[in-house]
Amino acid sequence: MSVPDFEVRRHKLIRSLKSAGVDSLLVSGESNVRYLTGFTGDSSWLFVSRRTTVLISDSRYSTQIGDECPGLDTEIRGVGKSMSDATAAIVKKAAVAQLGVEGDHLTISQHTSLENKVNTAQLIVTDSLTEQLRVIKDKWEIDEMRQAICQAERGIAVLRASIRPNQTETEIRYALEASMRDFGAAGPAFEPIVGVGSTAALPHAHAGSRVIEESSLLLVDWGAESKSGYRSDLTRVFFTGSVTKKMQNVYQTVLEAQQAAIQKIKPGVVCKDVDAVARGIIADAGYGRRFGHGLGHGIGLDIHEAVRLGPQSTEILKPGMIVTVEPGIYLEGRFGVRIEDDVLVTRGGFQVLTSVPREFDDAMIEFLA
Amino acid sequence: MSVPDFEVRRHKLIRSLKSAGVDSLLVSGESNVRYLTGFTGDSSWLFVSRRTTVLISDSRYSTQIGDECPGLDTEIRGVGKSMSDATAAIVKKAAVAQLGVEGDHLTISQHTSLENKVNTAQLIVTDSLTEQLRVIKDKWEIDEMRQAICQAERGIAVLRASIRPNQTETEIRYALEASMRDFGAAGPAFEPIVGVGSTAALPHAHAGSRVIEESSLLLVDWGAESKSGYRSDLTRVFFTGSVTKKMQNVYQTVLEAQQAAIQKIKPGVVCKDVDAVARGIIADAGYGRRFGHGLGHGIGLDIHEAVRLGPQSTEILKPGMIVTVEPGIYLEGRFGVRIEDDVLVTRGGFQVLTSVPREFDDAMIEFLA
Repeated sequence: MSVPDFEVRRHKLIRSLKSAGVDSLLVSGESNVRYLTGFTGDSSWLFVSRRTTVLISDSRYSTQIGDECPGLDTEIRGVGKSMSDATAAIVKKAAVAQLGVEGDHLTISQHTSLENKVNTAQLIVTDSLTEQLRVIKDKWEIDEMRQAICQAERGIAVLRASIRPNQTETEIRYALEASMRDFGAAGPAFEPIVGVGSTAALPHAHAGSRVIEESSLLLVDWGAESKSGYRSDLTRVFFTGSVTKKMQNVYQTVLEAQQAAIQKIKPGVVCKDVDAVARGIIADAGYGRRFGHGLGHGIGLDIHEAVRLGPQSTEILKPGMIVTVEPGIYLEGRFGVRIEDDVLVTRGGFQVLTSVPREFDDAMIEFLA
Repeated sequence: MSVPDFEVRRHKLIRSLKSAGVDSLLVSGESNVRYLTGFTGDSSWLFVSRRTTVLISDSRYSTQIGDECPGLDTEIRGVGKSMSDATAAIVKKAAVAQLGVEGDHLTISQHTSLENKVNTAQLIVTDSLTEQLRVIKDKWEIDEMRQAICQAERGIAVLRASIRPNQTETEIRYALEASMRDFGAAGPAFEPIVGVGSTAALPHAHAGSRVIEESSLLLVDWGAESKSGYRSDLTRVFFTGSVTKKMQNVYQTVLEAQQAAIQKIKPGVVCKDVDAVARGIIADAGYGRRFGHGLGHGIGLDIHEAVRLGPQSTEILKPGMIVTVEPGIYLEGRFGVRIEDDVLVTRGGFQVLTSVPREFDDAMIEFLA
């Protein structure tokens, strides 16, 4: 596995500091720290300024940092020294005037504690400086996303080949997780949703004890986390028995909404306009109130990251963004359908990175006697 | 599975509001919301005042909330309505004067957003109001902790019985996770640490590709999460080959430090004094600089929660607290030893809830040819 150039990423971040009104930044979001250093542990913050870069951690991680971040300056605080104390000392030594902190990651308590300790620089709350870099994936990251998608897709292929009518949702969930690991995933990208029948009508259901043959509909929402931390996210519905007209109609409506929304994706388009395409088709079919969530979200090191594709999303699509497109229709107490793919915004439009078949006929699973 | 009385818990919380200078509280910490309502999802906040209790969530969770929290008032915000908007409307309707927010859980951005929207009440940052209730476990919770411990202990017994010299750390990790699930766990309480030889010297190592027979020492740090969300946390070291004098000496030192620290536990004792007992024994043996973390932590719905047993911890032990006691000695590049048990503070002193054998002779694993 090759490694991205973390120094280039940090240089880009440093160039963005001036417009945020700061000359240094304290990065406390875990995925942001990973993006900028390669460090995969937690409880560690990165201080960056033009002249100084220091990862502030504790002794549990000293060896790991040496392995994962060769050459990076590190401050290993002792067991009695707080994060704020360690930060204050570094800020003082770095002689910076304004210390940016991450509004989306620092808690109020952490902020107060820093304000009490850091007295050589002014604390300024910043918004998504590292996230703005992360939203555009470079070639290395796109390859890693393909890897995470490949692991998820090979996993579902094994599941499809091995599924039995007497399996429970939970058994399927664990089998899918194990299968993705067999193909090299670090693990599932999130707790897979495996829902039989009316459980599929819950957009965030936990896999439970229902068995496949209880219903003719099965929804699986799953993804893999690659060894480098990138995540995929897909949803497919399978029919394991007789399909009602209603089920087919709902399925075709969701698929049509999804495909039309994907066609809308290209650089310059406002995110909410992509959502509106899918939402319009679902509303026209009479299911407007049955689609209660946004159309999709950015994906990368985090399963949900910038941007959002929702009715209020004013961000503009740019080449290198990767988003999920996942409309759904949920009929409470009966069944639900959601179809989800991962889509790269390209210079010319879009590329669907996920390739699990999604036509209605592809959704049929027949159990041979 | 019986259910605790969430209303009693909320009443206790409401009684504590006055001393914090507020007449209502917005609970945003996920485990706090679960503790007060039984709801197991995320992205949902609980508003409580003397007269009003409302869980603020979104449509993905409406059915689940109906199942998990019968009778609880719920505000399901629409896809275009922000959490702050929904909260502001509830605060206005409840006609409260001071809205407490959780300093340890709300981010700076969320706080700012609430400040912009809530204009009928003053926002006041509070510290650990729900956590102060959670730190003392009631009988129901202690039973759930015993459950999580039982699942972890049956899991390690299967692992011990089935371990083979050519297994990798990762294979052992997954086998242990699967085994705990077989005994009814919702899953592992955290990513289990399985470290062979020098990997055991990293207190937070990820299981990797090392095989058991590469070294004669294996460290496993694992726990189960029960179906109700309570977590156990244990560490044991196993010897799978010839043991050096150094290994034995380090093991005996850690065990002595752990047992002496546990003996110190009883109501009224200051937490740092428990840490000091273990730290003193390890320092006297010449390994003071090799024990770089605190002695232990509270455990319950979260794997790390109040209180801490560290060199600076000024909290006082009380009956009903459950803490881990886990001293360690880490010899970088060579090996590490940590021994960890979960201990209940009782009226008379302590009760060790975990029972996996921990004597030096118990740590031997022999592979029959």
